[in-house]
Parts: sequence; C-alpha cells; structure tokens
Amino acid sequence: MQFLSDNAASVHPAVWDALKAADTSDSPYDGDALSAALDDRFSALFGKPCAVLWIATGTAANCLALATMVQPHGGVVCHEEAHIEMDEGGAPGFYLHGAKLMLASGTGAKLTPDAIRAVVDPIRDDVHQVQPHAISITQASEYGSSYRPDEIVAIADLARQRGLGLHMDGARFANAAAFLGCSPAEAAGPVDTLSFGFIKNGAMSAEAIVFFDPMLADVAHYRRKRAGHLQSKGRFLAAQLHAMLDGDVWLENARHANAAAQEIGSACAARLMHPVEANELFVRCTAAERDALRGQGFGFYDWGDDAARFVTAWNTRAEDASALAKAITSL
Amino acid sequence: MQFLSDNAASVHPAVWDALKAADTSDSPYDGDALSAALDDRFSALFGKPCAVLWIATGTAANCLALATMVQPHGGVVCHEEAHIEMDEGGAPGFYLHGAKLMLASGTGAKLTPDAIRAVVDPIRDDVHQVQPHAISITQASEYGSSYRPDEIVAIADLARQRGLGLHMDGARFANAAAFLGCSPAEAAGPVDTLSFGFIKNGAMSAEAIVFFDPMLADVAHYRRKRAGHLQSKGRFLAAQLHAMLDGDVWLENARHANAAAQEIGSACAARLMHPVEANELFVRCTAAERDALRGQGFGFYDWGDDAARFVTAWNTRAEDASALAKAITSL
Amino acid sequence: MQFLSDNAASVHPAVWDALKAADTSDSPYDGDALSAALDDRFSALFGKPCAVLWIATGTAANCLALATMVQPHGGVVCHEEAHIEMDEGGAPGFYLHGAKLMLASGTGAKLTPDAIRAVVDPIRDDVHQVQPHAISITQASEYGSSYRPDEIVAIADLARQRGLGLHMDGARFANAAAFLGCSPAEAAGPVDTLSFGFIKNGAMSAEAIVFFDPMLADVAHYRRKRAGHLQSKGRFLAAQLHAMLDGDVWLENARHANAAAQEIGSACAARLMHPVEANELFVRCTAAERDALRGQGFGFYDWGDDAARFVTAWNTRAEDASALAKAITSL
Amino acid sequence: MQFLSDNAASVHPAVWDALKAADTSDSPYDGDALSAALDDRFSALFGKPCAVLWIATGTAANCLALATMVQPHGGVVCHEEAHIEMDEGGAPGFYLHGAKLMLASGTGAKLTPDAIRAVVDPIRDDVHQVQPHAISITQASEYGSSYRPDEIVAIADLARQRGLGLHMDGARFANAAAFLGCSPAEAAGPVDTLSFGFIKNGAMSAEAIVFFDPMLADVAHYRRKRAGHLQSKGRFLAAQLHAMLDGDVWLENARHANAAAQEIGSACAARLMHPVEANELFVRCTAAERDALRGQGFGFYDWGDDAARFVTAWNTRAEDASALAKAITSL
Repeated sequence: MQFLSDNAASVHPAVWDALKAADTSDSPYDGDALSAALDDRFSALFGKPCAVLWIATGTAANCLALATMVQPHGGVVCHEEAHIEMDEGGAPGFYLHGAKLMLASGTGAKLTPDAIRAVVDPIRDDVHQVQPHAISITQASEYGSSYRPDEIVAIADLARQRGLGLHMDGARFANAAAFLGCSPAEAAGPVDTLSFGFIKNGAMSAEAIVFFDPMLADVAHYRRKRAGHLQSKGRFLAAQLHAMLDGDVWLENARHANAAAQEIGSACAARLMHPVEANELFVRCTAAERDALRGQGFGFYDWGDDAARFVTAWNTRAEDASALAKAITSL
Repeated sequence: MQFLSDNAASVHPAVWDALKAADTSDSPYDGDALSAALDDRFSALFGKPCAVLWIATGTAANCLALATMVQPHGGVVCHEEAHIEMDEGGAPGFYLHGAKLMLASGTGAKLTPDAIRAVVDPIRDDVHQVQPHAISITQASEYGSSYRPDEIVAIADLARQRGLGLHMDGARFANAAAFLGCSPAEAAGPVDTLSFGFIKNGAMSAEAIVFFDPMLADVAHYRRKRAGHLQSKGRFLAAQLHAMLDGDVWLENARHANAAAQEIGSACAARLMHPVEANELFVRCTAAERDALRGQGFGFYDWGDDAARFVTAWNTRAEDASALAKAITSL
Repeated sequence: MQFLSDNAASVHPAVWDALKAADTSDSPYDGDALSAALDDRFSALFGKPCAVLWIATGTAANCLALATMVQPHGGVVCHEEAHIEMDEGGAPGFYLHGAKLMLASGTGAKLTPDAIRAVVDPIRDDVHQVQPHAISITQASEYGSSYRPDEIVAIADLARQRGLGLHMDGARFANAAAFLGCSPAEAAGPVDTLSFGFIKNGAMSAEAIVFFDPMLADVAHYRRKRAGHLQSKGRFLAAQLHAMLDGDVWLENARHANAAAQEIGSACAARLMHPVEANELFVRCTAAERDALRGQGFGFYDWGDDAARFVTAWNTRAEDASALAKAITSL
Repeated sequence: MQFLSDNAASVHPAVWDALKAADTSDSPYDGDALSAALDDRFSALFGKPCAVLWIATGTAANCLALATMVQPHGGVVCHEEAHIEMDEGGAPGFYLHGAKLMLASGTGAKLTPDAIRAVVDPIRDDVHQVQPHAISITQASEYGSSYRPDEIVAIADLARQRGLGLHMDGARFANAAAFLGCSPAEAAGPVDTLSFGFIKNGAMSAEAIVFFDPMLADVAHYRRKRAGHLQSKGRFLAAQLHAMLDGDVWLENARHANAAAQEIGSACAARLMHPVEANELFVRCTAAERDALRGQGFGFYDWGDDAARFVTAWNTRAEDASALAKAITSL
C-alpha cells in the first residue's frame, strides 16, 4: 500500500488510448495536429487566450516559464521550501543563467504579500544587489495547501505594482482546483505563466506550460528547443494533455486523490501539521508509530524525526486509503 | 509515401509492449529496476564497461555528453554541418555555458585527423583564443556516411595526443553499425561518450547516453537533473531502451531502413551526392523532377535548389521504397 | 622602434594629470562627479543623447554592449575575423550566456549588407536554428579599414528592417574618425551601442560604452557590476575619459598615429594588403625581408608567412616612422 | 571627517610612484616583467609556492577564484551576510554559471565547522539537491571580525574531509593579518585560494588572486580573459601590487587603519555590536545620536535603525579618529 509519492503513479487508461491513437504518421516536433490544437484547448479551459507548450518534466516547465520573465541578472522571489529551491538540482540557476532565488518564509510553504514585501523591500535599488524580476508560487503548495483565489489576486496585485512577473508552479494544480471547487481560471488567478502538472495525476511524460501572455510563449519555444526538450515525436506528449482534458480526467483524478487524502486526514486531524487541501498529508508520529505502520505494509516517507508524509494519487485504491486511515487511528 | 524524415516514424510494437509492461509501481526517476539494469545491458552490448543514462532527445544527449568533457571556457571541434552546429537551436551554447563550436570541413560531413588539425593547429596556446577541449563526430554523418572503424581510431588517436575528449553523435548509430556490419564496439570505436539514438529507429522518446568512462557519467547524472531531463516515470524511458536491445530490434530496424535506402540508391547511383551508407539519400534532381515525384505522392525535403533528401525508416514499406526507386529511375 | 601594437603604449600626460587630480575623496563606484558627468560629455560630443559607462577593457565593453541587445538564445552577426570571434577568449559566449556568433565574410574585415544577408537569409525562422539578434561591426576594422558613413547607414537600415541591434566595436574608433575627417556622430553612424576605445590611444585603463538608447544602459549598469567590472574607485576611470575628450586629445592622438601609418604606407604602397585607413599596416614581405627589418631594430608581428603587421600609436616617434618607411623602401 | 568606507580612499604615494615608473614600453596584457614577477613575490610573502593574478575588483577576484573550484552544478557554502551573497550583484551566479550559494549562519559573519555542517549535512547525496563544491570565508569578516589561525585550520580540515575547495575573501586580509599579528601564511591558513585585497588599503585598481594550487591558476588565466578582465596595460596593475608589498606598505597601511579603529572602539566599548578586529566598527546608537555626530561633521552609514558603521582607512587622519572617539564618548 503505497503512499510514497504520486510521482511514479501508473498511467491512466485514457492516456494509454491517446498514446496509441497518436501512433500515426504526422509532422515531427510540435508540428503535428495535436500539438497545434493545444492553445485552443487550454484557452477554452481557462476561458481566456493562452499559448501552451508541452514539456517532459515539471522542473523544465518551471524553469522555462521563469526564463521568459527573468533576466540573468535578476531574481525570483519564492518560498524557502519551494520545489525550485529545494528539489530541482539547481535547474533554475541553469535555465535562468545564474539569476537568484530570493527566499521568503510563510506557513504551509505559501507566500503572502507581506512575506514577499519582507524580501523585496529591503533590497536597495542599486546594482550591488540583485533585483527581483518575478515571483513564483506553488499551487497546491509543497505542504499541500491551496491558495484561495483572493490570495492569488493579492499577490498578483503586488507583482503588478512592482513590475514583477508571476509564475505558478502547478505540479499539483489539479488537486488545488479540485479542492477549491472553483474554475481553473480562478485556481490559477491572474498569473502570467502556469506550469500545469499532469504527470503526477495520470499522464506518462507530459506537463503543460501555459502562457497567458503569448509573447512569453514565443521565447519559450526557442528556449525549449535550446534545452533539448523539443521531442521529435511531440505528438505523444500533446496526446497525453488532450487525454487528460477530455472528459475532465484531470479533475476526476485529482478529486479521487484528494478524497483519499481527506479520508485519511479526517482520521488523524489532531496529528496534522498542515490542513489537507490537496493530496498530501504531513502527519505527526513517532518513529515507533512509523515502524508500526510500515509493519502493516504502508509505504511513505519520514518527514524529519517526528512526522511522516503520505501522498495519495489518482490510482490510490479506496481500500488502501481506508486501511491507512484506520491504522493511524489505531496507533 | 513518406520519405521526409525518420524523426517522426511510428513506434515499434516491441516498444509498445515494453511500455505497457512498465506500467507497474516502481521507484520514481531512475530508481526503478529497468533504469538500474541499463549499465549492464549496454556493457554487454559493447563488451566493455559503460554507464548509461536515458534521455528524451538527441539534442540533450549530445549536449549532456559534451558537458562532461568541455569546460565553459573551452571548445568542441565539429563539422561545419554537424547537427550540434546547425540544428540544435544553440543547445550546445546553453549546456556548455558558452563554450565554442570550432568548425571543420570535410566531405560527407565527416571529419578526418587532417581536418581537425587544420582547425586546432592554428590556435595559439594563449588565453586570447578559445582552446579545444573535445571533438564530436557523427555516426552515421549528417550526409548518411559511415565512419570506418579505422577512421574513428585515427581520430581518437589524435584526440588522445591533444588531450581532447571524443564524443560520437549516434543519432543514426544503428544505421551505421548495420551498414558497416561490424560490432557495436567497432562502430563506436574508442570514443569517450556516445549519444546512441533510438527514437528515429523505433523508440518513442528515449535515447541513451553511453559513457565509456564512468566518472563522466557521475557528472552527467547531476547535469541531467539540472536540465530538467530526469523524468519522474523514468522506467518508461528505460523500458524503451531494453525493448530496442532485446532480440536486436535496434539492428533489425536499421537493416530494414538501410536496405530500403540501398534499393533506392541503386536506382539512381549517378544522381547521388554522397554514397548511401545509412538510411539517407541526397539525390540530384531538378525542381521539375521534384514536382513530378511529389505529384506521384512522394514526400521529401528539397536539399538546396538542385537536390532532394530522402530518408527511409524502420517502418518504410518495401513497396514504397520500390515505387520510389522506380519513379526516380523513370525521371 | 616598436610597431608591435598600440595595446601597450604609454599613457598620455593629460591622462596622468587627470588621474592625479582625481585622487581626492569622492563617492565610490560610479557615484563620483566625474562618472556622473560622462553622459553629458559624450552627448555633447555626439550631438545626441547617450548614456555612457566606463569599463576597463575593450573585450568587456563589446560584450556588455552586446549583452543588452542579444538574448541567450540568439546570435550576433560579425565578421569571421572580428575581434569578438578571434581574440576575446570566448568572452561573448560568457557574457551572452551561450549566444552564437554568426560569421560573415568580407574584404578588409568589413561587413556589407550583402555579406550580412548571406548569413542571415538562409536561417530558417524556426526554433532549430539560432536566430540573429544583433550585428557587430568594427570601426576601424581588424585590417585597419574604415567604414564610410553611408556604409554604416546601409548596414543600420538592414538591421532595422530585420529587427536586429547594431553594435560598433570602436577599439580604434578614434583612428577611423580621424581618417574619415568627419564628426564622431558620422563615424559612428546610427548604431545602438559603441565600444569607444581609449586605451590604445593614450588612456591607461578606461574605455567607454556608449548607449544611444538609454534603456540599454540601464541593463548594462547591472551587468557591469555582475561581471565584477564596477571598480570601487571609478573616478579614476572617468577621469581618463574626460582627459581624453578635453581639447580633443583623443582626436589629436589618433591623427598622430594615422599620420605615421600614412607615411609608412606611402613608402610601400605596392606591398599593402589593405588600404591604410587607420593606424595599422599589413605589408607583404618575405621572411628574409622581415629578418632584415628586425635586424635594423624594428619590432612587429609576422602576419602569416608572407606579410608583417605594423601598428603605429599616439606616441610613435616621427623619426621612427620615417626610419621604418625608409627601411621598407630599401628592401 | 569621512568614516563611510575604505572603498574610495585615496591612493598611496608609493602606488603613484610605481604607476609612473611602469609607464615604459613593455609587453601587453600580463606579458610584462612586473606581472611575471608576481608569483615569486607572493610565494616569498607566504613562504610557499603560489600563483598570482592581478584583477581590478574584489568581486571579480572572488568569483574567478571560486570558478576554479566549483562546477556549474555545484554550490558554495558561505555566510548569509557574505559579500558574495549580499553585495556582488549576482556575480557569483554569473561566473559560476548558476551554481548555488548555500547560506550558513554565524556570529560576526564568521563560519564555524558546526555552522557549515548544519548546511551541508542535511543535503541528500542525490541529484535533486545541489551538492556543495566549496566553502568561502571572509578574512576579516563583513563585521570586522578576524578568524584565528586555528579556526581556519578547523574549517580547512572539514573542507578536506568533505572534498570541498576552500576560498578566502580577503578584501580586508591586510587588516586581519595586522590585527592577528601573525604571518600572512597563518592569517590565510590552508586555504586553496585567497582574494587578497589592496584597493581598500591604498591601491588604485588592483587586487591579487592567490592560488596555492597552481593548477587552479591555469584555469583562472583563461577565465580572467574570458571575463574581459585581462587588461592590455596589465603592468599598471602589477606595479600596484609590488608597491604595496615593497616595504610592507600593505601591512603598515592596515596597522594604521586598525589603530584608528581601536582608538574609536576603546571609546565606546559598551556600544560595540562586534569586537573590533580590523578597521570596521558597528556601534549602537540612536537616530538622535547619529544626527548629533553628523552635525559635528562625521560621515558614516546607518546600520539598521539602531546602529552606525564606521570604517577607518589607511589614510584616516589621527586627529579625525580622536575627534570621533571623543564625540562618541560625549554622546
């Protein structure tokens, strides 16, 4: 009973079908019909024009998105536990040519206008200090917390005031949207670019970079090729994105994962380090308790010495979630 | 009847089977069993120890391989029509942090020791000029020519003398090996790193970077992640590579493509700009002749004003190749 | 009798005086009064508004100027013998984060619109090929040839048409302006940025980067600091630039060097590889002839096997120039 | 009475003399006799072989030194208030091609083995996290504290254990050496590279990068040119370094500045935020007190809301120091 990560979850049947269906002759790279249809497809989803590129990883999605808004001599304000800071092997340094990550604090790995101002305001406007060029927030956050639409608007307002770009790392955007029960447009808010994750949520190897400013997408097309991310059989990536949007598979899958997380969370509310607002749970428990759970066949990561992280996925079996809920309750 | 490129060819059934078989729970990234087995698998193929990373594109394969041997202040000697110079959107500049491509000439897009010396020898050994750190050759070359084993040895000898790394862009390595009828080890020769291409030859989205010096692979692991190329469901890339090696699918597919190219080439020997030593044909013909061929349903690229490029693939139908051979003969 | 290079020539007395005069307490970096006065000073010289940064080397001047106009995924069209390609140790690759130099041919190391089009026109407008972002020309050229004002206008027109920035490497701009006998504004033409060289011409360690578009200067200020080129006692660099402009020292020095070159050139017109339009001479002569000259105490560089390069400077003594002229005549 | 910074202090007479004396014909770049003599000169000073490059700024010195030890995918452990983190405009990101600064805490802006371990130990040895490649410490620190020889040895021991390079930012190395009263070799300890500052201490525009491992210097030579820092009249930078070492001007100047700082510090011991171990004082005082001091003609920076920073220099007049000491006492 695996709760280690949604990262390596299996591939949704609809994605398999789409992949097989795409195995026909078509133009290479992103010259195929499926790739060409992405802009319209996501524009319809968000109810506003956007340009969309497929990409094989969330790390590349984040970095290419940021590279369109941040010059090499600038910086990106992000949370000190943001994925781009902690888990991308220095990819932002590579893609942004040495631009700086500027670390802000905040509960639940979420930023607030105040937290951003605390980082940005002390920076003297002179050449000795790196100036911020953009802000990056994660929806849902690295601790499974979801930004409410008005919270994003407040951050976007600050970004506009300060002339900063705004990026959303949406590796678990679907889970946030499902939790919030709002439209995709509301869950994204007025960001400039969104890394819309699908891989954790049932795709095999395709994420979407969504540009709400088409000019940014133009640069991203060059940068994607330059990063060796323009796959020659790009139709197979585009196909995955279409399959995930068809019939709202992306949303259904996220709802499923979230529901499992809620069930487990309800069973251990007093132990939760963060509210469960997506598909991750951070649960206080002793080493002995973790041993006990592992002894019952549950897989998960330790989170420091006094907690465990459980992640549900689109394919978490209902009985497994119930079993885990029960096991934690019985500790 | 498509002879535009092997780039977008369909996916081999064995690869599909392997992909489906890989859709089980396993560790993310390259922590899965299939990824872990690659070193042994390719070491057996080449008859010597090597370390292997999967990667989604040939551009990334080339650049990551070179990045292990070339410091940012150095250079790479390559042919002036090499893929890394002409067709990778500046990816070498990105991955090598501004290192320089040093362009050599040579018939059939092949380098020789003399051509390399003509580039390297005039470089003064002072800090005002970029010093070469590596050589990159393409097997089969961008004009479908294959390096003979002794030609590679001669270049490798020069590389060793000058303290240069040696990389082989093997986007069509299989076609070269099939043409040469020699072992993979002989077709690669004593290079330090090989970008072993599978995508043009029946895979969906996986190439192999082969390091015959395992120390280089260590750096490449970090750089792959840093480039956003460490896919979370890496088992699906590893599976493709295993499927291509199983039962020598890679070699069978290349033989098939080569045979089709040979048939067409035999039909138009006098028109050939380069000998047919892989699966590409560069055929002299007028614009009117090209129109005539297109009128008969053949797809291909113009090659300048006076020639056409035809590419066969693992899935080129025998009847299509024969039809093209006949059509060219009849021009 | 030294004709090796103007690179290491001594420092003009007016520069020494200015340096000493600057040794008073003032603000660090470029916060001093002398630095602050540069914009106005050069705006007056060129008769149009410009923003100016001091910088310690021509290489850094060229690269910082280009970095304001060229994105990392773009390219710079320059002559295949341009200083940025041949002699800057890969600095453009560093400062432009891997952008590509696109090499054009042309007599006397000068570009023409046709030569630029020959490089730019074949580039397909797709992501597989690096797109040009700027053009760089050298005034006077690496072979001592000077662009006529209308030649620069023609190149600038092409640049505007294609949306490319235009940079002038003016390491010997003074010599070109002196030769042309036109105003600085005419000698620079409608370029966007000019690396205005002073070091070869009598300064100790200060060049000027002139931005005719002040927005570009803003980025350059950040990039200069980021490159470790913002010296803490910047007033000493600013002082040199003022001293060189005061009383047209820059122009007088260049005229002196040019006159010496003309005298030598007149003595060996039949041997000249390029017209003498600045302070460099490329003179055909045999190895034996070069030995003879060296035997008479003349210092210079061989230029390949069959020629020699002589460079005059602001401090070339009249008798030395006459002696060289006579010696060549007598060969 | 200026106590703002030592950054823009005037130039020592011995330096002026050396500059004038260097204004003879010699080879360009670092081919002159003065530049060539630097290795021996500093080897004698440190009592062990080292290779030395002149460079125009401390920022470039630090970054070039680090670039020889840190690969682009690695990181540098430094104090969170280190100059390279706070005040170099992102230069480390540029020179290190996106490598990461890893911030440690510590009193007085000094690192300890424990503080370094607190940063390094939690880093998982996997490709998702940037791995440290080097440590950088500042002597004297950004708060005017000096590392004792045994403290450096302890850090160096840790560096060796972990396979990390060790760099010392010695912008005020002279002040630390003067304070410690030990040999330069002891004040530097077993570091791999030292940015040895002279500009704050009486030079005009020359710092030294000292490599105790000559292999590192080889790379630095290429990187210095590549960064546009190889000045054509390099003899003027070398001359400054020689002048500063001749007759221990560097040490005398530092002693003078330190003595002034000690006098002031003695007058306000209870107000000091940090011990005075070089030429900087961080003094608690209210805004009203600062106004009072400024009213008496003293120049200095506010340090947050409740303190002031005073910096003495080689040319601080004794009467000014006494006046300041008295003024603070009288507050």
